[in-house]
Amino acid sequence: MKLEIAVLSGDGIGPEVTSQAIKALEAIMHRFDHTFTFKDALVGAIAIDKTGNPLPDETLHLCASTDAVLFGAIGDPKYDNNPSAPVRPEQGLLRLRKELGLYANIRPVKAYDTLLDKSPLKREIIEGTDISIYRELTGGIYFGKKHLNEEGTIASDLCEYSKEEIERISHLAFKAAQKRRKKLTLVDKANVLESSRLWRKVVTEIAKEYSDVTVDFLFVDNAAMQMILNPSQFDVILTENMFGDIISDEASVIGGSIGLLASASIGDTCCMFEPIHGSYPQATGKGIANPIAAILSAAMLLEHFDLMEEARAIKDGVEKALELNLTTPDLNTINPLTTEKVGDFIYDYI
Amino acid sequence: MKLEIAVLSGDGIGPEVTSQAIKALEAIMHRFDHTFTFKDALVGAIAIDKTGNPLPDETLHLCASTDAVLFGAIGDPKYDNNPSAPVRPEQGLLRLRKELGLYANIRPVKAYDTLLDKSPLKREIIEGTDISIYRELTGGIYFGKKHLNEEGTIASDLCEYSKEEIERISHLAFKAAQKRRKKLTLVDKANVLESSRLWRKVVTEIAKEYSDVTVDFLFVDNAAMQMILNPSQFDVILTENMFGDIISDEASVIGGSIGLLASASIGDTCCMFEPIHGSYPQATGKGIANPIAAILSAAMLLEHFDLMEEARAIKDGVEKALELNLTTPDLNTINPLTTEKVGDFIYDYI
Ligand SMILES: CC(C)[C@H](C(=O)O)[C@@H](O)C(=O)O
Ligand SMILES: CC(C)[C@H](C(=O)O)[C@@H](O)C(=O)O
Repeated sequence: MKLEIAVLSGDGIGPEVTSQAIKALEAIMHRFDHTFTFKDALVGAIAIDKTGNPLPDETLHLCASTDAVLFGAIGDPKYDNNPSAPVRPEQGLLRLRKELGLYANIRPVKAYDTLLDKSPLKREIIEGTDISIYRELTGGIYFGKKHLNEEGTIASDLCEYSKEEIERISHLAFKAAQKRRKKLTLVDKANVLESSRLWRKVVTEIAKEYSDVTVDFLFVDNAAMQMILNPSQFDVILTENMFGDIISDEASVIGGSIGLLASASIGDTCCMFEPIHGSYPQATGKGIANPIAAILSAAMLLEHFDLMEEARAIKDGVEKALELNLTTPDLNTINPLTTEKVGDFIYDYI
Repeated sequence: MKLEIAVLSGDGIGPEVTSQAIKALEAIMHRFDHTFTFKDALVGAIAIDKTGNPLPDETLHLCASTDAVLFGAIGDPKYDNNPSAPVRPEQGLLRLRKELGLYANIRPVKAYDTLLDKSPLKREIIEGTDISIYRELTGGIYFGKKHLNEEGTIASDLCEYSKEEIERISHLAFKAAQKRRKKLTLVDKANVLESSRLWRKVVTEIAKEYSDVTVDFLFVDNAAMQMILNPSQFDVILTENMFGDIISDEASVIGGSIGLLASASIGDTCCMFEPIHGSYPQATGKGIANPIAAILSAAMLLEHFDLMEEARAIKDGVEKALELNLTTPDLNTINPLTTEKVGDFIYDYI
């Protein structure tokens, strides 16, 4: 297969981990005889520094014209304490999602057997956890009308959802559930929010088309509890943008290291793959960043193009690295490897 | 002291646990020579059943004219799967908060030494946790304009905050921090929401009046992670209504039993005290509901009226019960006591 991939490695540890993901894809390319071409572009704080714009037009055009986007991370401490700055790295990411129509953010959360003891949660609580979170990514309060009155004393954000926005991600989530343990949990706040009541209505309607999938409804406050009390009860979680942001970050802690968690953002014509850990500026350039989340994001890319055997090869490499504890300091305090060496091991393994 | 207390015991286990809280207050009354009078009123599903209204006018009037409200719980399974029903128990609670102006919801979260092993989190993670969450309770997306178009295909909720709404609860939270470990963490999503940026601006401004308090800002997604990774880092958490709902329920899991967690809802003229566990319909009438959250809510009531020694007496009784494991089945599977017997022990202890 021929694939053109835009590489937006961004800020902080983004470049370091993304280059390990590229290396893994190169290994796949050689072993399975595919042609992947990689094209770099700017995003985030580095794009602001160089062009004044967190998402330069060139970057957007490149992303829209390639088959997939490999994303690193964005964010720089110099913007962190000033969320009111007129130009900020996050704006680049939010605009990218919107412009590319990446309406479904998919985050797998898995408790790896070899890492059960790294979790802040007890082993018996997390054992067997294997969740796929489907978060709506281009609607809701993130993109609704914002308002600040002239005096700067009243501020508002609108959380709006249309039936169509709910339908398209719901179909993806139900299809995923059919291939998994056939359970879908809608997380909402339907006892308070009108938009949540629409989610519940639309999902109830769609559920009829997927009669083999069991549907559950959970209020977001209860979901935040259940995620800690009994995470293995979940299979596919479906939810709106803001609740998905919170619940998926909460869930990311289960596995013992946020350095393992990959994500895919999917639209009708574009797709983007991204480790969820963010730019982690304190670690930049030290060779201590865990590349596994980026590498697993590359595996999600392959799965998206139905290259299942290829994705499996990457995942096997990752699991081997975890098993042998050939990992970075977040997982291995005694005898850690560098970012690059972990990438090398997985490359060689493939 | 003379106090008139409205008792809204509500649904499910509400009546059972509330009567134990009243018993504890009666013990205090005798020992410290106060006069507490209790007046019952309807709220929730039981109020719908009897009057068609989850918050009858009589109840509202009673609450507005007494010194304090002791609240049990609301909610009944017959409404749970139908959040679109025109009349629902939650509406009673939300209207009560709004009409009484209870803008600050305060939830202490503590890891009791005697219960460290009951938590889904590891002992070393939760040890020393002692958080006081200040959640704004009468604004934000809960009470903003809701809209559903005629075709029922587009729904929205407005999250709006004014400077004044933010100020009044912030002052309470800063004052609380001054009496505690002098740290306040504002949880928001200022990198996305206009309303969060107003929170950050107003809180930064107010912080100048409390120069002995250290202020931190945390995005809500990160807060959801930190609550599990390292809960003992927090002292006072201040946040808006919806984030507070999610984060405080998440935090409630730390201590090992949600049956221990009390709350206070405070306004300028009224106050209400409530266990956070909800109506727990499956347990109703079985004598297995943990009365401690309700009893500790009564202690918060006493603290609100500056009866510190009295509150201490209740808390000592609770701690003794925990120490001796004289508790209900949620905490004691071997030799559990009934709801009533736990209440009796604390009564006798006082
Ligand atoms: C950086 C931020 C705007 C973003 C979000 O809230 O969506 C991030 O937290 C994420 O989850 O990808
Ligand atoms: C019952 C519900 C409306 C309520 C809320 O969301 O505020 C509850 O979850 C709470 O936290 O008291």
